[in-house]
Amino acid sequence: MFNKLCIIGVGLIGGSIARSVKRHDLSKTIVGFGREKDVPNLQAAKDLGVIADYCLDIAEAVANADCIVIATPVGAIESILTLLKPFWNEKAIYTDVGSTKSSVIAAAHNVFGHVPDNLVPAHPIAGAEQSGVIASVDDLFLHKRLIITPHKTTQVSAVQKMQVFWERLGAQVAIMDAGHHDAILAATSHLPHIVAFAMVDMLGHKDEQSEIFKYAASGFRDFTRIASSDPTMWLDICTANKDEIIPLIQQLKVELDKIERFLETNDNQQLFNTFTYAGKARQRFLDLYEN
Amino acid sequence: MFNKLCIIGVGLIGGSIARSVKRHDLSKTIVGFGREKDVPNLQAAKDLGVIADYCLDIAEAVANADCIVIATPVGAIESILTLLKPFWNEKAIYTDVGSTKSSVIAAAHNVFGHVPDNLVPAHPIAGAEQSGVIASVDDLFLHKRLIITPHKTTQVSAVQKMQVFWERLGAQVAIMDAGHHDAILAATSHLPHIVAFAMVDMLGHKDEQSEIFKYAASGFRDFTRIASSDPTMWLDICTANKDEIIPLIQQLKVELDKIERFLETNDNQQLFNTFTYAGKARQRFLDLYEN
Repeated sequence: MFNKLCIIGVGLIGGSIARSVKRHDLSKTIVGFGREKDVPNLQAAKDLGVIADYCLDIAEAVANADCIVIATPVGAIESILTLLKPFWNEKAIYTDVGSTKSSVIAAAHNVFGHVPDNLVPAHPIAGAEQSGVIASVDDLFLHKRLIITPHKTTQVSAVQKMQVFWERLGAQVAIMDAGHHDAILAATSHLPHIVAFAMVDMLGHKDEQSEIFKYAASGFRDFTRIASSDPTMWLDICTANKDEIIPLIQQLKVELDKIERFLETNDNQQLFNTFTYAGKARQRFLDLYEN
Repeated sequence: MFNKLCIIGVGLIGGSIARSVKRHDLSKTIVGFGREKDVPNLQAAKDLGVIADYCLDIAEAVANADCIVIATPVGAIESILTLLKPFWNEKAIYTDVGSTKSSVIAAAHNVFGHVPDNLVPAHPIAGAEQSGVIASVDDLFLHKRLIITPHKTTQVSAVQKMQVFWERLGAQVAIMDAGHHDAILAATSHLPHIVAFAMVDMLGHKDEQSEIFKYAASGFRDFTRIASSDPTMWLDICTANKDEIIPLIQQLKVELDKIERFLETNDNQQLFNTFTYAGKARQRFLDLYEN
C-alpha cells in the first residue's frame, strides 16, 4: 500500500501502527522520527523490530515517504507541522492520530494559512493507561472505532485511501466533521476524565484520605481508573477542546444540583427514576460497545 | 461456632455468607427466611445446598437460632427488626450487613426505643453488580474489608465474637463508629455512584445519545460501571446517608468549578497540577487496595 511509512512519535499509538502495518504488510519500510530526547525509545523500537530505522533529521525521515503519520500528543502537532512544512510533499499523504480534531485543523491553518489537501486528520479510539513503544501491540486497532475528520478541502482520494488503510488494520472507520467529533468525544471521554481527576483530587486533599482510600473497593478502582491517565496528554486534550468541555461541566453541575435537590426534598420517586434511567442508558451503551 | 444461623434475605450477600459459613464449618445448620415473593429464590438456595431449609414464618425461622443475620437492603431493616422484636432472644447475636450504619442504629431506636445490646451492625465491603443467591460464592469476603460499627451499648463479647466470625470468613475487620463509617463510605462509594448515575443520565438524555455511546470506549465503560448497580438498593443507600452525601456533592461541584475556571483562564499550570495530584493520589489508593 505504501513504499515508506514515516511515523513521527513512536509511542504506544505510533508503535502499534508500525507493528500493525508490518503484520498486514502495508508498507515496504517503516521509519521513525523523534527528537534527541526520544533516542532511547526510538532505539528500543528499532531493537524490537517495530521500525526498520529512525532519524533525528526531519528531511531524512520524510524523504521518499508516501505516508507520514503524526503520532504525537495533540499539543505537539502544530510544531510538527512547522517542522514538516519545508519538506511538504504534495504526492504523500499526511495523517495524525490526535484525540481532538478541530485543534489539528487550526494548527494546519496557523502553519500553512490553509489546510493542506493531503492532510487526513484521524482519531483511533484506542489507547491504554500505559505509554511508550514497549506497550505497543500489533492489534491495538482491531475492532476499534476510528474517526476520520476531513476538512472541506481534503482530497477525497486521500480520505478513501486512509479509510482502506485503517480498515486493513481492523478498525471500524467513520467519517465526520472535526467539530462533531470533538463534541462527541468531549461527552464520552473528556468529561469523564475531568470528573475522575476532580473526584480523586478532592478526596486526596481530605485529611482522612488514607482512611478513605483504605476502605475504597473495586467500584472506586474502576470509576477512577482514568484518573491515572497521563496528565501531560490530558492537559493537551482538555485545553484543545475546552469549548466543548466547559458547557458539559456546567451541564453535569446542573444534573448534580438536581440529584442534590431530590435528596434534600426526599423525592425518592425522582431519584429512583434517575438511577433507573441511567442504568437503562448504560445498557444501551453496552449493547453498542459489545457489538 | 453457632448451632443455627438464620439468614434473613438469601441474596448475593446472604447466600455468600451461607456458603462461606458452610465452607468453614461455622454453624451446625443454616436456615433462610423470606417472604412469599422470595420463595423461588429461597427454593433455589435450598436446591443449591446454600441453606438447609427456609421458612416464611419468622417465629419458626429464628427458633433456637444463636445468630441471626439481616442481609436485606438497608431500607428493609426497620421492618425486619419489627418482625423480629416479638421473638427477640437475649442470648442470640443479631447482625446486619447494610451499606449504611447510622440508619441501622436509628431503625433499632425506632423499633425498640433503644439499641439492643446484642445487635452488632456490620458492613462487608464486598459486592457485585449481580444479585440473587445464584451469584453467591463461598469466598466473597476473602481479603475484603469489613467494618463493625458497635453502638455505645453493644456487648463487647458480641462484637468480639462477630469479629472472629468475619475473620474466619477471610475478612479484614475494622471497628469504628457508625457515623465515621458513613462519612467514609459516602466519599468512596456513595458519591462515585451518584456521579456515575448523574453522568449517564445526562448523556442518555442528549438527542445524539446513540452516537455518543457508539464512540465511547473502555474508559467510559469502567467509569460508568457502577451506574449499572441496582437502583432500588442505591435509592435506599442514598436516602439513608444523605446527610453525608449532600455536602460531598457540593464539594465536588466546587472542584468542578475550579477546573472550569482553570480551563476558561488558560491556567495550564494549575490544571496540570490538579491532574498530577489526582494521579498520585490514585496511586496511593492502589497501593492500599492491592495490599
